[in-house]
Amino acid sequence: MLPRGRPRALGAAALLLLLLLIGFFLFGGDVECERGERGGERRGPGSFPCPLTPRVSADGRPRGAAAVDGDPSADRGGRNRSDCVPPRPPLPKCELLHVAIVCAGHNSSRDLVTLVKSVLFYRKNPLHFHLVTDAMARNILEMLFHTWMVPAVRVSFYDAEELKPQVSWIPNKHYSGLYGLMKLVLPAALPPELARVIVLDTDVTFASDIAELWALFAHFSDEQVIGLVENQSDWYLGNLWRNHRPWPALGRGFNTGVILLRLDRLRQAGWGQMWKLTATRELLTLPATSLADQDIFNAVIKEHPGLVQPLPCVWNVQLSDHTLAERCYSEASDLKVIHWNSPKKLRVKNKHVEYFRNLYLTFLEYDGNLLRRELFGCPSPPAAEAEQVQRALAQLDEEDACFEFRQQRLTVHRVHVTFLPHEPPPPRPHDVTLVAQLSMDRLQMLEALCRHWPGPMSLALYLTDAEAQQFLRFVEASAVLSARQNVAYHVVYREGPLYPVNQLRNVALAQALTPYVFLSDIDFLPAYSLYDDLRASIEQLKLGSERRAALVVPAFETLHYRFSFPSSKAEVLALLDSGLLYTFRYHEWPQGHAPTDYARWREAQTPYRVQWAADYEPYVVVPRDCPRYDPRFVGFGWNKVAHIVELDAQEYELLVLPEAFTIHLPHGPSLDISRFRSSPTYRDCLQAVKDEFHQDLSRRYGAAALKYLTALRQPRSPA
Amino acid sequence: MLPRGRPRALGAAALLLLLLLIGFFLFGGDVECERGERGGERRGPGSFPCPLTPRVSADGRPRGAAAVDGDPSADRGGRNRSDCVPPRPPLPKCELLHVAIVCAGHNSSRDLVTLVKSVLFYRKNPLHFHLVTDAMARNILEMLFHTWMVPAVRVSFYDAEELKPQVSWIPNKHYSGLYGLMKLVLPAALPPELARVIVLDTDVTFASDIAELWALFAHFSDEQVIGLVENQSDWYLGNLWRNHRPWPALGRGFNTGVILLRLDRLRQAGWGQMWKLTATRELLTLPATSLADQDIFNAVIKEHPGLVQPLPCVWNVQLSDHTLAERCYSEASDLKVIHWNSPKKLRVKNKHVEYFRNLYLTFLEYDGNLLRRELFGCPSPPAAEAEQVQRALAQLDEEDACFEFRQQRLTVHRVHVTFLPHEPPPPRPHDVTLVAQLSMDRLQMLEALCRHWPGPMSLALYLTDAEAQQFLRFVEASAVLSARQNVAYHVVYREGPLYPVNQLRNVALAQALTPYVFLSDIDFLPAYSLYDDLRASIEQLKLGSERRAALVVPAFETLHYRFSFPSSKAEVLALLDSGLLYTFRYHEWPQGHAPTDYARWREAQTPYRVQWAADYEPYVVVPRDCPRYDPRFVGFGWNKVAHIVELDAQEYELLVLPEAFTIHLPHGPSLDISRFRSSPTYRDCLQAVKDEFHQDLSRRYGAAALKYLTALRQPRSPA
Repeated sequence: MLPRGRPRALGAAALLLLLLLIGFFLFGGDVECERGERGGERRGPGSFPCPLTPRVSADGRPRGAAAVDGDPSADRGGRNRSDCVPPRPPLPKCELLHVAIVCAGHNSSRDLVTLVKSVLFYRKNPLHFHLVTDAMARNILEMLFHTWMVPAVRVSFYDAEELKPQVSWIPNKHYSGLYGLMKLVLPAALPPELARVIVLDTDVTFASDIAELWALFAHFSDEQVIGLVENQSDWYLGNLWRNHRPWPALGRGFNTGVILLRLDRLRQAGWGQMWKLTATRELLTLPATSLADQDIFNAVIKEHPGLVQPLPCVWNVQLSDHTLAERCYSEASDLKVIHWNSPKKLRVKNKHVEYFRNLYLTFLEYDGNLLRRELFGCPSPPAAEAEQVQRALAQLDEEDACFEFRQQRLTVHRVHVTFLPHEPPPPRPHDVTLVAQLSMDRLQMLEALCRHWPGPMSLALYLTDAEAQQFLRFVEASAVLSARQNVAYHVVYREGPLYPVNQLRNVALAQALTPYVFLSDIDFLPAYSLYDDLRASIEQLKLGSERRAALVVPAFETLHYRFSFPSSKAEVLALLDSGLLYTFRYHEWPQGHAPTDYARWREAQTPYRVQWAADYEPYVVVPRDCPRYDPRFVGFGWNKVAHIVELDAQEYELLVLPEAFTIHLPHGPSLDISRFRSSPTYRDCLQAVKDEFHQDLSRRYGAAALKYLTALRQPRSPA
Repeated sequence: MLPRGRPRALGAAALLLLLLLIGFFLFGGDVECERGERGGERRGPGSFPCPLTPRVSADGRPRGAAAVDGDPSADRGGRNRSDCVPPRPPLPKCELLHVAIVCAGHNSSRDLVTLVKSVLFYRKNPLHFHLVTDAMARNILEMLFHTWMVPAVRVSFYDAEELKPQVSWIPNKHYSGLYGLMKLVLPAALPPELARVIVLDTDVTFASDIAELWALFAHFSDEQVIGLVENQSDWYLGNLWRNHRPWPALGRGFNTGVILLRLDRLRQAGWGQMWKLTATRELLTLPATSLADQDIFNAVIKEHPGLVQPLPCVWNVQLSDHTLAERCYSEASDLKVIHWNSPKKLRVKNKHVEYFRNLYLTFLEYDGNLLRRELFGCPSPPAAEAEQVQRALAQLDEEDACFEFRQQRLTVHRVHVTFLPHEPPPPRPHDVTLVAQLSMDRLQMLEALCRHWPGPMSLALYLTDAEAQQFLRFVEASAVLSARQNVAYHVVYREGPLYPVNQLRNVALAQALTPYVFLSDIDFLPAYSLYDDLRASIEQLKLGSERRAALVVPAFETLHYRFSFPSSKAEVLALLDSGLLYTFRYHEWPQGHAPTDYARWREAQTPYRVQWAADYEPYVVVPRDCPRYDPRFVGFGWNKVAHIVELDAQEYELLVLPEAFTIHLPHGPSLDISRFRSSPTYRDCLQAVKDEFHQDLSRRYGAAALKYLTALRQPRSPA
């Protein structure tokens, strides 16, 4: 309960602290403070300065916490920071720690992932993340955590939209907009039974166990409700330029990148009223906040200094040129949390920034799958889906020659949808999304694809965490790709030896937002006019509710490296005739596309129906709610055929479009394909999987499935 | 000083220890042992059990250390392991820690790198590595550490060959051979002024700061000379099979994967004699060691139990199925060091192994460049080369549009030569090594190249640490590549935005071991007979000391994806005539190879001389001591031209071989090339670099360089 009479309360607080300090230094021994020095030795690993010890400044500069630690005698002559270290914080074993983060948009979502990776790397406690998100971030993070399945991690989402009214009245010049004000409403927004929470900005990276930070709650006096590290820039000193008027703060003020909140006490103290009162008053004379909620926190603290427990600077090392920050990390041997609040570009000359950069890069590129490990000594029940997967995996026979196939099929890949900023396309009645999947070695195709297809795309990329960063840089460096807002890239994180081609297609398909989809492959460039033509055809043919059909886009290939893309059907025919173009896989596997009846296509001027035949795998346009691809087909071989079988079994008409075409460009075999084809068990396992697929078909379609079984049994030349 | 009269000394030691133990538990407080429990709370981060507390075994099983900790009263009723924790070890700030590792061969060298990465990740102290190596490991590791330039790391090498005589008399059944016995001779081999050292096996991974391990030296009594963790298998209990006779040991014995050695005391105690005596005696009844030096250490310790200080099990968690190891890590919350001494394959069902695997993979794939950071608070002078590089980098102008070019040129890349097992080719007078460079996207070419060229190859691969592991698996999975012993792969670790093509070529060139080299590119497949033909031509033409020349292998290209490789010059001519083959880059940049005079080549039956012309960049065979490639050319463009200019300036004759040919296969543009060509400053910077190159030429060759300058200035169509 915060005292009403402030000066008296401050005095009482100061006296209490004085007594505590005296108590520490007289009787402390190993009860509160641990001496880090023995016989001249100066440093022990893991020691860090007592938060209550005022920092020794050579210039006697007043510190933000001066009003709290008012007693200079606490700084006993000559004792320096390494003298006094808090006791190793005694947390209850496996205590659940709570972390709250405000996160909006695609870019912050990526930053949050890096932050979470760094937290997970060092943590030994179960964690509960409370994420205040906009719709985009929620979409991404919900899917990500769901597929990540990290043991002993729980995630709750809070809708930022609902909280906006509470802060929308505050003018904010900071680029974070309304989201930058939301930490203020956390005591109200978070569950009332939640007493304590650590609040983090997304641009923070951990270099230590978050339990050590949580343990600092133990140092709060009864009045203290918020733990913060001093701000390491001169902003709040107000002398940066001539008319610089920052919000009020104690000395340098505090930085809100890392916050310890006693939610229970804040609520009891009427926090909601408190900050609104302060903000309203300040806004009478200041036009807006410049640093979002940090300004308001500092103004409140200026009024009520007893609220704040200053934290050691190592818990929020703010990247800046300022000597204050450098003093923090030149004295401390342990940096705990790095805060990337500097816009400076990192050049090789600044060696401290090199250290930070390396730490950040470590987690940026760190394989998130490696963080799925159990907590030792804190067994927690696995999530339901995780348990299901584990059970299924446990049933696999390790000696089975096709073990890898079956294991890959059961693998739940971590998925980060809309990895890059993406604008959902405006709703249009016959709109089509191009759906495809790829990995690093096909990034080259993206620019060409963008030139050929102006419409929306949903692309699944099978990447490692490190490759995802390369991909990010690739898109940022490409003018063509950066300009496109309607191409959605979904990263599916690599795991397992075999290429989960149909799982990738299903991710891209599920993320498509238009009523129709064009199911393509990454090595094909569609006709320049295809996007428009397809929408016209969809409308004419009344594809969808009135007509269950799959529109076939005839597929061709060129073997020539230098190839002038045809701009009309007539040019396609000319190229076919001159041998510069072939129907797709004409030489090795004509049955893949022969049922398209290219001879008829030459002459056709209206769409015509074709019949399903064995091994037919055309590229089709279907309504988005079509059957999914069958994920039992991993690696390569038959993964599209099975889908067309499914469409045919569900009585989709196969209609070939007379003006449409798509052309395959030559490319070297991918590493994944080579690896797959060199596997000795490939053929046998593919056959086993096909058989299982057909058994499924029989179960689901009864007699109608007979046609496919018969076709399967017919001998034909191998792929 | 070890007592001469052993029983009496043992008694004295035990009494002393007893007194010390009593002292600890009565007066210790925070002087020696820190209580980890307060009010029911059981665990604090970083706590670990006192090494001197006998481990509580429910079954009363005797422990290896029984003879040392003979006093059961040390185990005060009901006190369990978490009660007693040693004090945070107070190391002098920035104390230099010494680590010794025995490492022989290519595979152990890779393991050592992973171990070192894990040590560097957590360390805060300067380190000095003492590496006992064979010639291959020395070759690799010397270059690696030299190019790695990690601050505050020093490396000394000790020749295993010289130490072999000291152990070669010991029969050893373990696969490690003589190298597995060398830890025994470390007190003699390491510098006499070195008092303490940590000794590690290469299959060990750190999960903590090595300073904590070093600090355990403080727990040695005056007699103790060696710190070890108990062996976590039943091997030394001797009951594994019917006639199983292990070497003598105390109980379960100790595992020598992690050792603390007091070298000073060992030498004083006459360690050399001591172990030899013991080994000789045991070898009277045992045929050989089974576990190499571990057997001998255990036998000595059995005789002199007072020598050993048992270390907590967390410092050497040995992967095995045994309950003993599981008890170690199910009770401890902190595993410090993982020892991969299990041959078991890792399947998804064993969740503890999953934890270990993830830790191991973390460091296996960790970007070693990120470990180049300075130590905070322990400034150390950079190595001379590092300082030079830093100074040069500091002189660069960040605002220079070509900053990236210049920075890339100065970048010292970490290099791991002979990444995979490699047999140096036997010396042959006219032998030629094919030299090329590549990155991940060209791995496909390797098998084809191996089929075309049976001779030695030296290939530089530009990879990240993670890609290097993929590459390793790729080669292991390929029958063709695994079979070849004369292909040397050198990994140059990626760093910087631009492709350091000439630095890569120089690495491959420097590592070639034959008197001649064929300077090729990865996308070219040489004629099947080229290897034999070149050696014949080299001999005939007396290439080398008698004749300074570069033998030109004419270059062609096919644009066709399906291409039947010609097996003779006649077939090449036929393909040229039918338009399935072209001279290389015939369409876009004919001047690159036109001076080869293909018209003359058609008819030629003997080698003929050609003249240098602007932009000429043929593929040549030269003596190995030819000029290096100029590293200022990064990215793409002119990097081979400059080299040919250099050859010509040094008056190498250009002789075209009449029967030789090499053919370029089509491939998509690499990510690196796309990135490069999309850079807006590319052309300007390339021109700037060319100009500097020519200025250099003028300086070195005077008037003779005029010809190149003139050629440079002539207008011609751009690439």
